[in-house]
Amino acid sequence: MVKKIIGVMGPGKNATKVDLKNAYEIGKYSASQGFITLTGGRNDGVMDEALRGAKENGGTTIGILPSDDKTTFSKYIDIPIITNMKSARNYINVLSSDIVVVCGIDAGTSSEISLALKAEKKVILVGLEKEANIFYSKLAPSLIFVVKEYKQAIVIIKKELK
Amino acid sequence: MVKKIIGVMGPGKNATKVDLKNAYEIGKYSASQGFITLTGGRNDGVMDEALRGAKENGGTTIGILPSDDKTTFSKYIDIPIITNMKSARNYINVLSSDIVVVCGIDAGTSSEISLALKAEKKVILVGLEKEANIFYSKLAPSLIFVVKEYKQAIVIIKKELK
Amino acid sequence: MVKKIIGVMGPGKNATKVDLKNAYEIGKYSASQGFITLTGGRNDGVMDEALRGAKENGGTTIGILPSDDKTTFSKYIDIPIITNMKSARNYINVLSSDIVVVCGIDAGTSSEISLALKAEKKVILVGLEKEANIFYSKLAPSLIFVVKEYKQAIVIIKKELK
Amino acid sequence: MVKKIIGVMGPGKNATKVDLKNAYEIGKYSASQGFITLTGGRNDGVMDEALRGAKENGGTTIGILPSDDKTTFSKYIDIPIITNMKSARNYINVLSSDIVVVCGIDAGTSSEISLALKAEKKVILVGLEKEANIFYSKLAPSLIFVVKEYKQAIVIIKKELK
Repeated sequence: MVKKIIGVMGPGKNATKVDLKNAYEIGKYSASQGFITLTGGRNDGVMDEALRGAKENGGTTIGILPSDDKTTFSKYIDIPIITNMKSARNYINVLSSDIVVVCGIDAGTSSEISLALKAEKKVILVGLEKEANIFYSKLAPSLIFVVKEYKQAIVIIKKELK
Repeated sequence: MVKKIIGVMGPGKNATKVDLKNAYEIGKYSASQGFITLTGGRNDGVMDEALRGAKENGGTTIGILPSDDKTTFSKYIDIPIITNMKSARNYINVLSSDIVVVCGIDAGTSSEISLALKAEKKVILVGLEKEANIFYSKLAPSLIFVVKEYKQAIVIIKKELK
Repeated sequence: MVKKIIGVMGPGKNATKVDLKNAYEIGKYSASQGFITLTGGRNDGVMDEALRGAKENGGTTIGILPSDDKTTFSKYIDIPIITNMKSARNYINVLSSDIVVVCGIDAGTSSEISLALKAEKKVILVGLEKEANIFYSKLAPSLIFVVKEYKQAIVIIKKELK
Repeated sequence: MVKKIIGVMGPGKNATKVDLKNAYEIGKYSASQGFITLTGGRNDGVMDEALRGAKENGGTTIGILPSDDKTTFSKYIDIPIITNMKSARNYINVLSSDIVVVCGIDAGTSSEISLALKAEKKVILVGLEKEANIFYSKLAPSLIFVVKEYKQAIVIIKKELK
């Protein structure tokens, strides 16, 4: 009965166009399957685009917010969960996701990958540079999936959430 | 566009029959209005009954869980948010609620009332003993509403969330 | 080998002169016994005075800080523990204290009392108004001690930490 | 007046002998300088050895504990800070450290590196495999120091904490 939750993680202001495209498409796919799309909830970068992809395609969206400052909330959130815990909310992001999809990398995003692995969650790295792929694949080979772009991520999500 | 969230707080195993009835009815009312019902998410007492009241009447439900132990999850949760933060999750419960409805009291619940007041949230105390009503009314007169049972709580919710 | 930790909790800007005096004296006593004095760490009210009482009398002090903004830190902290979790740090304050001494009351302080009781910590209420004393004594009779001023609190600390 | 805090992070049960040696020596050095040594506090691996190195050499030690289960506490802790927040305590570990020294790697440790970088803390990687060194050096070139063993880490600590 509980709906599946896809967590989409990635950079805010430093996201590339490709990261944003991947995030939007994962949100769109998540919506098409009746999954819930969850991000860190700010109106910036991958967080915002994944939620937009879900909302514009009829999905349900959750933002796990680091602060109660409403000017930082994505306008594509249905359900804002407010933590006031800054980066400690990254732990809640990944614990609450059935699978974690990572579009791009920065320090905050890398903490989400690591916290997800610590909690034994599966993590799909989408379009990351080779240094990140090599590091995380060696750190947790049974949990990490490395793909080039969103289409391959969708194939993995399908298999893993069946 | 963001849906309103009603937080329902109260004891687990020490909830009285009256607390459970009030919790169920608040969940039911919340569902009838298209609000989301949020609790601490365990399969016990007021948390469980508020979610049951919402689910059995077509509502959407969120549980903010203190632990990732699935045997403790209410079966009436649509969206489980997992924190692994034990009582620190009480802060998230109240920050994420547009209004907090309290059905019964114990130590954990009293922390939720206090954290809600600290965050300047409105709190409705439903059917509490006079010691609690007097204490909290004096602590935060502009935020606390004292009522006997769920019908009066619903009147206040209507006015406050308009 | 582990040193005992006395947690001193109470209002910031709304502390009364009597609250501040009680806090200072508890910090001073804690130092005299070789205990560590722990507070919420801000340079305000009871937090600041308890730490000052300890530092001016040769004690060791810890502040569990809600934010990494150094302009808010008490200058009487030896060891700043930084959480960036706002009021969720109240849970850490009480979990880390061997006994909790409360000098005055406001919403934040009341959350600390409640979280302490939830964690089955002993709590001494010093000079609180009767509404608080009655409420908490009924909520957790085996954990709450009600006293008029710091001298009586010291008698209880001696007995409890023996 | 505030003492400097050296955070030592690394694996628990999967620490290598070299990791443990590096951790012990950093704790010993920290004690020799009058710094405080801080770890995640469990009686396991790098956490335990860094605290032992500090305690056996007259230092002061802090453990930021994920759980209140005393059977998991290192016996070399002077000041136990109890969070009950599992891996979310990793954020507090790094926020509270003036510099972070990493001896070995696993998923939890990698979350500490990333959370430290997010908070703009300097991080010294001691004896890590090249995949980790390359990844983190690229992620945050101005914050990451890569060294082979504890002696080089000590040179960097001296310079950075001057």
